[in-house]
Amino acid sequence: MDPSLLDDLVAANRILAEHGVIDAYGHVSMRSPGNPKRFFLARAIAPQTVQAGDIMEYDLDSRPIDARGDSVTERFIHSEIYRARPDVMSVVHNHSPSVIPFSVTGVKMRALFHMASFIGDGLPVFEIRKVKKGSDLLVRDPRLGAALAKSLGKEAAALMRGHGSVTVGENLQRAVGRSVYLEMSARMQMQAMLLSKRITYLDTSEVKASAPVQDYKRAWPMWREKALARAKAERR
Amino acid sequence: MDPSLLDDLVAANRILAEHGVIDAYGHVSMRSPGNPKRFFLARAIAPQTVQAGDIMEYDLDSRPIDARGDSVTERFIHSEIYRARPDVMSVVHNHSPSVIPFSVTGVKMRALFHMASFIGDGLPVFEIRKVKKGSDLLVRDPRLGAALAKSLGKEAAALMRGHGSVTVGENLQRAVGRSVYLEMSARMQMQAMLLSKRITYLDTSEVKASAPVQDYKRAWPMWREKALARAKAERR
Amino acid sequence: MDPSLLDDLVAANRILAEHGVIDAYGHVSMRSPGNPKRFFLARAIAPQTVQAGDIMEYDLDSRPIDARGDSVTERFIHSEIYRARPDVMSVVHNHSPSVIPFSVTGVKMRALFHMASFIGDGLPVFEIRKVKKGSDLLVRDPRLGAALAKSLGKEAAALMRGHGSVTVGENLQRAVGRSVYLEMSARMQMQAMLLSKRITYLDTSEVKASAPVQDYKRAWPMWREKALARAKAERR
Amino acid sequence: MDPSLLDDLVAANRILAEHGVIDAYGHVSMRSPGNPKRFFLARAIAPQTVQAGDIMEYDLDSRPIDARGDSVTERFIHSEIYRARPDVMSVVHNHSPSVIPFSVTGVKMRALFHMASFIGDGLPVFEIRKVKKGSDLLVRDPRLGAALAKSLGKEAAALMRGHGSVTVGENLQRAVGRSVYLEMSARMQMQAMLLSKRITYLDTSEVKASAPVQDYKRAWPMWREKALARAKAERR
Repeated sequence: MDPSLLDDLVAANRILAEHGVIDAYGHVSMRSPGNPKRFFLARAIAPQTVQAGDIMEYDLDSRPIDARGDSVTERFIHSEIYRARPDVMSVVHNHSPSVIPFSVTGVKMRALFHMASFIGDGLPVFEIRKVKKGSDLLVRDPRLGAALAKSLGKEAAALMRGHGSVTVGENLQRAVGRSVYLEMSARMQMQAMLLSKRITYLDTSEVKASAPVQDYKRAWPMWREKALARAKAERR
Repeated sequence: MDPSLLDDLVAANRILAEHGVIDAYGHVSMRSPGNPKRFFLARAIAPQTVQAGDIMEYDLDSRPIDARGDSVTERFIHSEIYRARPDVMSVVHNHSPSVIPFSVTGVKMRALFHMASFIGDGLPVFEIRKVKKGSDLLVRDPRLGAALAKSLGKEAAALMRGHGSVTVGENLQRAVGRSVYLEMSARMQMQAMLLSKRITYLDTSEVKASAPVQDYKRAWPMWREKALARAKAERR
Repeated sequence: MDPSLLDDLVAANRILAEHGVIDAYGHVSMRSPGNPKRFFLARAIAPQTVQAGDIMEYDLDSRPIDARGDSVTERFIHSEIYRARPDVMSVVHNHSPSVIPFSVTGVKMRALFHMASFIGDGLPVFEIRKVKKGSDLLVRDPRLGAALAKSLGKEAAALMRGHGSVTVGENLQRAVGRSVYLEMSARMQMQAMLLSKRITYLDTSEVKASAPVQDYKRAWPMWREKALARAKAERR
Repeated sequence: MDPSLLDDLVAANRILAEHGVIDAYGHVSMRSPGNPKRFFLARAIAPQTVQAGDIMEYDLDSRPIDARGDSVTERFIHSEIYRARPDVMSVVHNHSPSVIPFSVTGVKMRALFHMASFIGDGLPVFEIRKVKKGSDLLVRDPRLGAALAKSLGKEAAALMRGHGSVTVGENLQRAVGRSVYLEMSARMQMQAMLLSKRITYLDTSEVKASAPVQDYKRAWPMWREKALARAKAERR
C-alpha cells in the first residue's frame, strides 16, 4: 500500500486512542484503495502503539493475506460491513464511553451539534441477543458481523448494546472524525436532557445540508501530524 | 502589526485550544489597533498549530488584504460583529462543549460565579433557523454574520443554537478569558441545577460591580508564556 | 522473586495511578507464586512512585518478612483475602472516584458493559459500621480484614462504604484490569441511570460467557511498557 | 525563612494548580513559624508559576514586610483567619469547580468519603451579601476578611457563595490536602445525590475518629517532589 495511506491508518489508530474514543480494544480499518475486496487492519495490539509494520491485509472473509501476528477477534465487524456497504471505505469500532449509556437505555441519540450532524434523527442499536443468546457480546464470526451490518443499514454509525459503537465513512478521515464527535455529541445530549425535556435537535433539512459536507478536514492534518510524531518518537 | 500583538493573537489561539474551549474549528480575531476597519485572523488551520505567519488581515467585508492560505468560512462572524460593535476589539468563536447543551434547551445561562459575571442575567441565543432554514448552521455570509451580531446586541457573549458560542471583549485578553470562564460557568450552572431548583445567582448590583473590572490579568501572562513556548518549540 | 514478576507489580502500581483509579493511598498486591502463604506489597508510599526496591514480602498475618520501610496500614485487606480465597492471586484496594457514590447509596452496581462483566448482577458493599462503630473507616486489623473478605465472598470485587473498593483476580493483570474497568462501568451506569429508568444489563448467560474470558490481555503489554518506561526514567 | 519551608510553600502553590483546585486566582499561605503575627504568601501571580523569590511576608493587617511586587487583593482572607484562629498555620483560597455549585444552592456539603472526613456534618457558607451589598464578591478589606473568618468559625473549611472556598489546617500539608479532597468529595456527593435520596454519610463518631488523624502524609512527598522538579525545570 501507498506509504502515505499506511501512515494515515497508523495515525487513525493513535488519534482515536488519544481522544479517549477507543481503549486498548477498539480498532479502525481502511478498505484497500486498489481492491474493494480487501481491507487493512492492525494486528491485535493496543491501537495507541500501532506502527506501520503492524498493519495486515484481509479479504472479505476476514482471512489475513499476510499474517503478521494475531488477528483481532472482532475483525468480522469490518469485513461484513465492507461486504454490505460498497460506499464505505473505513470502519471504526470503539468503546466510546459516553455512547454506551445510550446503548443500554433505548434513549435515541439524535443530532444536536452540527459537528455530529451525521447522527440524523437517530442511530440504530445492535442488540446481539436477538441473534445469539448468552454471547460474550463480541462479534466473533461472519454471522454476527452480518447482523451488525444489517442493523447499521445505510447509517453512518450504529450503537452496540452494552459494548460500544461502530462508525463508518467514505474515507478514513470521516470515519475517525465521526467517532470523535459522536462521543462529544453523546455527552452534550446527556447534559441537555438533564437540563430540559425540550431540546431543539437539528431538523431534517439542517442534517441534509450539514452531514454530507462535514469531512473534519481542518482537524485531520493536526491530528495526523501529532500522531505520527509520537509514532516516530516511539520507534527510536 | 506590532510583533508583540501578533504574538498575543498566536497565544490566544493556543490558549483556547489548550483549555478545550475551541476544537480544530474555533477561531479568535483581534481588531487592528491602527485601523478600526480591519481585523486579524489566522488562516483556516487548527488553532493549536497557529504561528505568526498564519495570521491574515481582513477588511470588514471579510476580504483578505494579504491572503496567506484559505480563509475561515465563518469569518463573517468577526467582520459583522466588528461592524456592529465599535467597542469590541476581539472576537472568539468556539464549540465550547458545556455551553452547547444550554444553546439547545432554552435554559438561560446566568452569572453564578464571579469570574464569569459578564454573563449577567442571561445570554442571548442565536437561532440561525429564524434567518435561514435548512442551513448547515455555519455563518457563511455577511447576512448571517449581521443576524448573529444583532442577536449578540450589547452583550459580552451569545450562544449559537446547536453550534457553539461567540464571546467578545474590549481587548483580546478579555475575549479569551471570557471564553475560558464561560465554559467553566456552564458546567457549574448545570451541576447547580441538578443539585437544587433554588440557585443564588449574582444580583444586578454584583454583576455591575464585578463584570467591568474582570480582565483576567493574573491568568494572561502565564497562559501567554506557556503558549508561546509551545509555539516556539514546534517551529524548530 | 522473579524480576519480571517484580516488574509486573511495579507496573501495576503505576498503571492504577495513571488511570486515576488509585490516589496516593491505594495499593495492589500479588500472592507469592512460590509460597501461597506469602504476598508482595509495596511499602507505604504513593503508588505512582513505586520502584522494585519498595516491594516487601508479607506473611498471612501481614507481618513483613523483609521490612524495607513502613508498612501500609490496611495491609490486612490483602492478607485476609488471600487467607479466605485460595483462588485469588492479586488484590487491589482503591478509592475509585465513581465507585464511591454507589458505596454510600445502596444503589447496586450491575454489569452493563462487557469489559466489566465480572460485576455480574451486583457487587457486595462492605459496611464497616456493622463490625466496628466509630471507626476511621480503615481496615486496620485482621478482624476488619476478615470481615471485608467475608463481605467479598466469592465475588471479583466489593465496595467499601464511604471509602472505596477492592478487586481481586486469579492473576495480577486481571485484578488491575478489573479496577480500571470497574471505574469506567460505574461512570457509565450513573449516566445510564440519569438517562432512563429502564436499563438493559448483561443477563446471567452473557455474564457467564464473558467474565471468565476477560483477561485484559491486549491492554496489559502497553500499560506495562509505558509504566516501566516511566519508572526507569525516574530512577535516573 | 527556612529554605525547606519556603520550598513547601512553592510546592503547595503548584500542587493546588496541578490538581485543578486553584486557577490563576487562588492562593495559599503559611503562618510564620517564628512569629505568629506574620504570614507568607506569594505576590499576585498565577500560583503554578510561583518560585521562592515570589514569596512575601505580611503582618496581620496584610501589610507586606518586604514588598516584591503586587500583593494579592484578597490577602485579607489570610490575615483575618490567622487573627481569629490561633490554631491555623495555613490557609488556602480557591475556586474549586465542584464546590461552587454547592455554594450557590444551599445544599450542604457533608462528609461521605473518609479522605474528606473533615467536612463533618456540614460546612458553613459565607454570604458576602450579608456584609456588603453590590460587591464584586472579592474579600477586599479587613472587614470582609473578618466576616469570612466569622463564618468559618472553628471549621476546617468554608464555602464562599458564587466564588469558591477557603480551607485551613494546623499545617500546610493539611490545608493543601483538604483542598484537594474537598473538590473530590464535592463531585462524589453530587453524583451520590443524583443516584439516590438516601445517602449514608460518615456519622459523628466516624468523623471524630478520622478527621484528626488525616494528614495526607503519604501523598505529600510525591506531590512536593514533582512540584519542585517542575519549578526547577522552569527556572533554567
